[in-house]
Amino acid sequence: MKIAILPGDGIGPEITAQAVKVLNALGESFEMESAEVGGAGYAAHGHPLPEGTLKLAKEADAVLFGAVGDYKYDTLERALRPEQAILGLRRELNLFANLRPAILYPELAGASTLKPEVVSGLDILIIRELTGDIYFGKPRGVRECPDGPFKGQREGFDTMRYAEGEIRRIAHVAFQAARKRDKRVTSVDKANVLETFQFWRDIVTDVHKEYQDVALEHMYVDNAAMQLVRAPKKFDVIVTGNMFGDILSDAAAMLTGSIGMLPSASLDANNKGLYEPSHGSAPDIAGQGVANPLATILSAAMMLRFSLGLTEQADRIENAVKRVLAQGLRTPDIHEAGSTKVGTEEMGNAVVAALA
Amino acid sequence: MKIAILPGDGIGPEITAQAVKVLNALGESFEMESAEVGGAGYAAHGHPLPEGTLKLAKEADAVLFGAVGDYKYDTLERALRPEQAILGLRRELNLFANLRPAILYPELAGASTLKPEVVSGLDILIIRELTGDIYFGKPRGVRECPDGPFKGQREGFDTMRYAEGEIRRIAHVAFQAARKRDKRVTSVDKANVLETFQFWRDIVTDVHKEYQDVALEHMYVDNAAMQLVRAPKKFDVIVTGNMFGDILSDAAAMLTGSIGMLPSASLDANNKGLYEPSHGSAPDIAGQGVANPLATILSAAMMLRFSLGLTEQADRIENAVKRVLAQGLRTPDIHEAGSTKVGTEEMGNAVVAALA
Ligand SMILES: CC(C)[C@H](C(=O)O)[C@@H](O)C(=O)O
Ligand SMILES: CC(C)[C@H](C(=O)O)[C@@H](O)C(=O)O
Repeated sequence: MKIAILPGDGIGPEITAQAVKVLNALGESFEMESAEVGGAGYAAHGHPLPEGTLKLAKEADAVLFGAVGDYKYDTLERALRPEQAILGLRRELNLFANLRPAILYPELAGASTLKPEVVSGLDILIIRELTGDIYFGKPRGVRECPDGPFKGQREGFDTMRYAEGEIRRIAHVAFQAARKRDKRVTSVDKANVLETFQFWRDIVTDVHKEYQDVALEHMYVDNAAMQLVRAPKKFDVIVTGNMFGDILSDAAAMLTGSIGMLPSASLDANNKGLYEPSHGSAPDIAGQGVANPLATILSAAMMLRFSLGLTEQADRIENAVKRVLAQGLRTPDIHEAGSTKVGTEEMGNAVVAALA
Repeated sequence: MKIAILPGDGIGPEITAQAVKVLNALGESFEMESAEVGGAGYAAHGHPLPEGTLKLAKEADAVLFGAVGDYKYDTLERALRPEQAILGLRRELNLFANLRPAILYPELAGASTLKPEVVSGLDILIIRELTGDIYFGKPRGVRECPDGPFKGQREGFDTMRYAEGEIRRIAHVAFQAARKRDKRVTSVDKANVLETFQFWRDIVTDVHKEYQDVALEHMYVDNAAMQLVRAPKKFDVIVTGNMFGDILSDAAAMLTGSIGMLPSASLDANNKGLYEPSHGSAPDIAGQGVANPLATILSAAMMLRFSLGLTEQADRIENAVKRVLAQGLRTPDIHEAGSTKVGTEEMGNAVVAALA
């Protein structure tokens, strides 16, 4: 089993190193190979997604990804900026299904800005379509405005779009995931305004006929943003498009107050996937040894479960993480009075120790 | 001064009646005329925005709008559904600037799902562009997918777009509003992915040159959704496009836990405007006399301030609302132990009494 390790920028290398350490401690034989990506890819090879990196990612059975982005690359032209790497990997590897759990560990309920009774025990799974929508739709660009009151001026424009098959496959992912959980899917759209999402609603409704044991609810995106703040525990699985999913999954992650704990998976049709923490590259704390490696370690667990078929090893990692939390170990981002503050490496070592 | 009163559906008529009562108690001579809109428009004239209603709205100096929507119209074809009325009014009246304050009254801090220290004293102004973006862009519809792996299938599609002049005018509104507040503007975009919003960022940056006394910050929409949950008080004025504004303004409103208190204004280039509560038509409680009329009453105050130039009368209403809150009067949506529960009409009467 070959794993591509793409540490990236900022805290990416430190947190990825801890996840690799945990993987090595499992007693399986993984072939792991690293490559530069993001700003590091640009610095080493002149492109955020160098050819060699893409080739490695394509050949591997799974990709473990750190994070990309750093202030020093902010002034590059858009095509060379670090985040193009992640967009490129999604597109090139057909990673259409992004799974982002928003889980609040009981020990960390205090870290949330929401009242404990509103969020304790939170366990939502957000499934975001990742290769369609306005992210990749064409045409797009800047042109002369063709009509209306602003005719003749410059205008920026993009194309939102979803084909039937794209909606069907992500709907299947959502209904199947719900079957392993509380059997409820909320499909988030804007069918009252957008043709794309009226179509989305129609197709999701059609796919639902094959899953009559799962409850389906449709919700407008503005209402979903409100309900996430008002009563987030009412959700089980949320499925939505790329753009709305970008916004809602980050909002849901922040509800927990502990985004440093949240993993994510981006899967293709054959369960090959890219796994990354839900948080970013945090260049402000990079290299200080204080970043929380748990989201990346939990991403590695998701990788074992979804792409490598090693369910027991995934369970071992997840249980080890629960154990270190129960031991009171906390990196600074989740530290509270009474708990023990540890650094990135100590946290990684503690998880390794807790695997036993 | 002529005011068009469009009560609409659900709780719309009850709450609008209270606002009209308050306006009548001011001792000014307003000419007020009512017309059906939304589901009520459809029921009376076969269209959610009947010709007569649109004509009245165009002739008036300002529009006071209740709310539209009811379950019984959910099965109508989209062009006849209640929300088309509000989209039609925005477009026909060129109401491009939507101002939505998210204010947490100190007395109501407990109503929020967020911890009091995170939200108490919250005072954000969200300025949402309201006549452009993917809401009205063309082409849109369902077509045959022209290329790519889904070629030949049906696909839903829409066009996102902003012309230079549209961005300039909303940026001016934002910077000018910030000058009367804490002089900080956060422009929310998705410049790392969307051409429309890279263009948006460039133009907002250019307009900012005329407002060097105001601080401008650019933020991606996913990050903005997170920061609204994490540290909402850091924002002063947020300016964004129609689609992102739809999502973020509802999320911000819900942070307060008292959306029944929040007014909104939608203005054209000459400060003619439509004023409506930020909440919806709540058909589940319609006709029970329990709806909170304060958001509509405060919308009437915004109308006096922005469209009718009656600043003092606007102040009188806003102070009266503060007084009834200080008296402990609460409709059920904001009721807590220790406060006095009142109905829609009692609340309206209390505001009238407090005007003195
Ligand atoms: C970096 C950016 C292009 C990306 C996105 O918008 O998808 C990020 O926000 C994410 O959610 O992974
Ligand atoms: C009803 C709907 C079309 C409308 C919108 O999306 O603008 C509403 O959500 C709003 O924010 O006023």
